[in-house]
Amino acid sequence: MSRFDVEVRIKPRPGLLDPQGKAVHHALESLGYDGVSEAKVGRLIALTVEAGSEADARDRVEQMCRKLLANPVTEDFSLRVTEAPAVTDGDG
Amino acid sequence: MSRFDVEVRIKPRPGLLDPQGKAVHHALESLGYDGVSEAKVGRLIALTVEAGSEADARDRVEQMCRKLLANPVTEDFSLRVTEAPAVTDGDG
Repeated sequence: MSRFDVEVRIKPRPGLLDPQGKAVHHALESLGYDGVSEAKVGRLIALTVEAGSEADARDRVEQMCRKLLANPVTEDFSLRVTEAPAVTDGDG
Repeated sequence: MSRFDVEVRIKPRPGLLDPQGKAVHHALESLGYDGVSEAKVGRLIALTVEAGSEADARDRVEQMCRKLLANPVTEDFSLRVTEAPAVTDGDG
């Protein structure tokens, strides 16, 4: 088993209301930042998981997304999987 | 002026409490997903901004992060800037 860092990027689906994004957009405008044509707010979840392979890690986290992390009705998610750097236990 | 897509990734600073991450971690465990050794929850903000250059877009969004989007005491942020795909207005 190896350790993998999985970054889950969850975004509101295009076309659906994104009240947080709207609030950020308005706040930026009222601070004088014009030239922002779109703002969307989503979530970023960083997991470290044990898995036999990169594909296995991806499968497991996709399942977690569907069951818990993302709302499939209103959100899209995508994953980035990288092998976690080895941990030195300091006892070798 | 060109349009740039800027992805702002905001994460809780290492070592600080991350109650959302803890909640996600516990929820995954109670659903039977063991082998998750860490879970952190942050925000993902996607902005589309007008700017003269990629460096200019980055500068402006870094300012927005410091003033509004991120909490510098508890959060770290990083940016990914890419040129936005050209919009076809359909009137050409």
